[in-house]
Amino acid sequence: MAYTIGLDYGTNSVRCLIVDVTNGNELGTAVYEYETGEAGIILDPADHNLARQNPADYLKGIEAAVKAAITEAKDADKDFDTSRIIGIGIDTTGSTPIPVDKNGTPLSMSDEFKDNPSACAWLWKDHTGHAEAAELTELAEKEHPEYLAKCGGTYSSEWFFSKILHCLRTDPAVFDAAYSWVECCDYVPAVLTDTTKPDIIKRSRCAAGHKAMFNDQWGGLPAKDFLARLHPELGELRGRLYEKTYTVKTQAGKLTEQWAHKLGLPAGIPVAVGAFDAHLGAVGSGIAPGKLVKIIGTSTCDMLVAESSRQLPDIPGICGLVDGSILPGFFGLEAGQSAVGDIFNWFVNYIQPGGESAGSHEALTEKAAKLKPGQSGLLALDWNNGNRTILVDQRLTGLILGQTLHTSAHAIYRALIEATAFGGLTIINRFEEYGVRVSEVINCGGIAEKNPLLMQIYADVTDREMKISRSAQSCALGAGITGAVVAGAESGGYDDFADAQAAMCGMKDITYKPIPENHRVYQQLYALYKQLHDAFGLQGWSGKLANVMKDLLNIKDSVIS
Amino acid sequence: MAYTIGLDYGTNSVRCLIVDVTNGNELGTAVYEYETGEAGIILDPADHNLARQNPADYLKGIEAAVKAAITEAKDADKDFDTSRIIGIGIDTTGSTPIPVDKNGTPLSMSDEFKDNPSACAWLWKDHTGHAEAAELTELAEKEHPEYLAKCGGTYSSEWFFSKILHCLRTDPAVFDAAYSWVECCDYVPAVLTDTTKPDIIKRSRCAAGHKAMFNDQWGGLPAKDFLARLHPELGELRGRLYEKTYTVKTQAGKLTEQWAHKLGLPAGIPVAVGAFDAHLGAVGSGIAPGKLVKIIGTSTCDMLVAESSRQLPDIPGICGLVDGSILPGFFGLEAGQSAVGDIFNWFVNYIQPGGESAGSHEALTEKAAKLKPGQSGLLALDWNNGNRTILVDQRLTGLILGQTLHTSAHAIYRALIEATAFGGLTIINRFEEYGVRVSEVINCGGIAEKNPLLMQIYADVTDREMKISRSAQSCALGAGITGAVVAGAESGGYDDFADAQAAMCGMKDITYKPIPENHRVYQQLYALYKQLHDAFGLQGWSGKLANVMKDLLNIKDSVIS
Repeated sequence: MAYTIGLDYGTNSVRCLIVDVTNGNELGTAVYEYETGEAGIILDPADHNLARQNPADYLKGIEAAVKAAITEAKDADKDFDTSRIIGIGIDTTGSTPIPVDKNGTPLSMSDEFKDNPSACAWLWKDHTGHAEAAELTELAEKEHPEYLAKCGGTYSSEWFFSKILHCLRTDPAVFDAAYSWVECCDYVPAVLTDTTKPDIIKRSRCAAGHKAMFNDQWGGLPAKDFLARLHPELGELRGRLYEKTYTVKTQAGKLTEQWAHKLGLPAGIPVAVGAFDAHLGAVGSGIAPGKLVKIIGTSTCDMLVAESSRQLPDIPGICGLVDGSILPGFFGLEAGQSAVGDIFNWFVNYIQPGGESAGSHEALTEKAAKLKPGQSGLLALDWNNGNRTILVDQRLTGLILGQTLHTSAHAIYRALIEATAFGGLTIINRFEEYGVRVSEVINCGGIAEKNPLLMQIYADVTDREMKISRSAQSCALGAGITGAVVAGAESGGYDDFADAQAAMCGMKDITYKPIPENHRVYQQLYALYKQLHDAFGLQGWSGKLANVMKDLLNIKDSVIS
Repeated sequence: MAYTIGLDYGTNSVRCLIVDVTNGNELGTAVYEYETGEAGIILDPADHNLARQNPADYLKGIEAAVKAAITEAKDADKDFDTSRIIGIGIDTTGSTPIPVDKNGTPLSMSDEFKDNPSACAWLWKDHTGHAEAAELTELAEKEHPEYLAKCGGTYSSEWFFSKILHCLRTDPAVFDAAYSWVECCDYVPAVLTDTTKPDIIKRSRCAAGHKAMFNDQWGGLPAKDFLARLHPELGELRGRLYEKTYTVKTQAGKLTEQWAHKLGLPAGIPVAVGAFDAHLGAVGSGIAPGKLVKIIGTSTCDMLVAESSRQLPDIPGICGLVDGSILPGFFGLEAGQSAVGDIFNWFVNYIQPGGESAGSHEALTEKAAKLKPGQSGLLALDWNNGNRTILVDQRLTGLILGQTLHTSAHAIYRALIEATAFGGLTIINRFEEYGVRVSEVINCGGIAEKNPLLMQIYADVTDREMKISRSAQSCALGAGITGAVVAGAESGGYDDFADAQAAMCGMKDITYKPIPENHRVYQQLYALYKQLHDAFGLQGWSGKLANVMKDLLNIKDSVIS
């Protein structure tokens, strides 16, 4: 009997999961809500782009969540014994970089900068660096298009260098005081293993590859010259960042005596190098070649792996293609839809069809389920929050078409679900066009578990069976799996991920198989979706409607200002 | 002091208006709701295309409405004296043809056919003849394209011959028993003047020209050969229809002793030849060259006149171009939008945004008024019920574009209003492209009176002042004006329409002038609307999206059946 701990740092809280490595049983779980700011996020009423976090919350969270999970495990199984915990794994949001001093301590923990948001963690959804992102994209397009080819063609304001450059431009005191910057997923494992010093901290391949344009093809991070063109100081910083990165198969270090004591865990157990939540969520859902893991929440992450031994072309429009970012020995491929649950939430919360009682997700779903595919005559684009994959364009907007004088709210709700299914199929098709097969889809996230109609539509639209990951906390489970692998077989864990996943992952009994007659109708509807997708989304498309959504946003900007 | 009576036969009721010919003052008005069917319409639960009316209701309505209006007039003015009533005018819905016997009596009044809907009046919105309409259009396109050029290029299922041919195909007993078919607007004046016999009844130029392809250019009704190609019996019917038509300047006859006695009116006063409601509504709103009358209800009619002395080209996409159909001596031009009020009603009643309290027209309008033009980032097409002018295509559907995750219901409501304004501008532009100037817009109908936001948006979008017809019952007033003209100046009326309109029509004090800065934004938005309009609406458009809405409807039809 052996256990591992998975720590999953989300946007508002951290979850601890204690898992049995022999069968994936979840013995105890606990959540700690970050204390600082609103729901754990430091906001600025004057700038809706700003979203920061207090790194101290990450540390408080370890103690609170781990202890509570242990208590729960002991309650559940009186034979549970913390001495059987053999490893720890960690996933976090990202890119969430933190400016640190020479010891690797966040600047926000110093007296000098303690109330300064620039010295905090720059949460993934902080968009203050949007101008810097455009600048990075423009320069890379000209001088190093290969940098962008691995991350969808556009460098995002959510990513590492956009944020650091924005800090340099707007709060140089913080930038100057920062010896280095570390991702949240680097920082937490380093704290637990006393390896925070920037010269020894082990950096996540996942974070570096997907968000910092790190790739061995061009010698790691972007060239010093390139960064210096953006700002000389950014060029200088490169030498204080990193040359090498590590997959989750690597130990970040061993749990220190001090932390072992604090948490009631065995000292010296290995802690895995960290990774992003979606990536370890994919691991926890049993990702393997041919199996697309779809993490469905307000948005989706669509994760795939392909053997590193293959010659894989760059795939236009996907968010990232990084060797070892999900599983060692495999390219990790990340794609996603900018809004899925959020589109349904928009309709229910902003439009409130039929008022609060008639217009709940449940009520709309129940009525929508009675419609046949194609019966509503409606077609929608799933772009209310832009399009992440395959168009990589935040300045796209939603579209609903086919309304008559009798179109009902639940028909629109169904059309919105279908639109997200069509968007998902577009991602699958893109992968397959470039030789990455998708034979099966594993879904995780609350919507996948709660909405059979959505799952059936996804199966019917994609003509693929939809499975659902057994664990309701796939990210934390994936982190626990990395703990089992860094512990190794000799400690009761596993020597490789395939074995660990085989033992620890599972699917729910219920699956959704495509219904041929529905798929036939959806094939016709998808052809029309693709027509609209290309007409409004592709710049070079002959019909020249690609201006419409952008012109509207430009007009909107001009009349508001 | 002289008065006339205007009788306005609507879809659910008939209104009687007693009006002072010297100044247009409305002394008395009364409404009679038809008794038969649901809200006056005979429906068939098994066929939603069917909509018929009981002609007996039309006659009951005369007596009830005229008497009640007289009572009201007497209550309002003790000096009011029915002996001063000098003429009667009538407008009705159309095309609403009635099968009649040799005496001009509706077959539904015979014992043989009294319960047979085929023997009743075929209400304008009866669409049972949709297949026959397609057949008529196809044959005319091949053999007589000139027939269609005057009525927008497509013969509608709502029109005269579609209905008669459908009757011939589906209920030959009724067709065989019918000596002739008369429009409702021919029938009522004929009853009052004892001129119902098909060989003497005076047929309305308005009805014949707009709905029965009657034009002196080709010798009146469509050629016998043409009709016989559709069905030999239809060819035979032509000889029992009519060779000649009359404008509203003509007397249908004199009020009979019997009706005069029944109604308490002077016997022998003239009754004008009838016309359709929108056409006399235009007269009652003061239509004249350059003045577009926009009758805004669930749909709109957009009416113009142009001097008959002009060489007027056919104008593609407008519903009709008929010499004398509105005013004698002028071409009457009819265009329209298939849904205006109905689109707002759809959003409020079917989508019910925010529930019943928050989602009323008033509440949505109040919030929508706070938005600036362009601020919502939304753009919609006003095609929820197809597009009447200029695309003449019932198989087009609605579109809303530009939604984000924060788009509000009132922003959509405003976008729907704007869409109808853009649709209205497209009609104006079409008229002007063909040399028919629109310098001023006169609006009538409840929405125009009740919704200042809509009127201001219409002014801002079209860059034209929006005026509002003073009378709340412009159609009945227009009918009253025809009564004054057929009475003539020597009886205290008028010898021509210009004089009658000058005296009897008026505008409300409030008008809506275009706000230049709003218009500038709407010019940009209209360019985008026109892009979508052409992309989805024009078959020959290079972008080839014209299939999208139709394919969706075809898919819908295929999955429902």
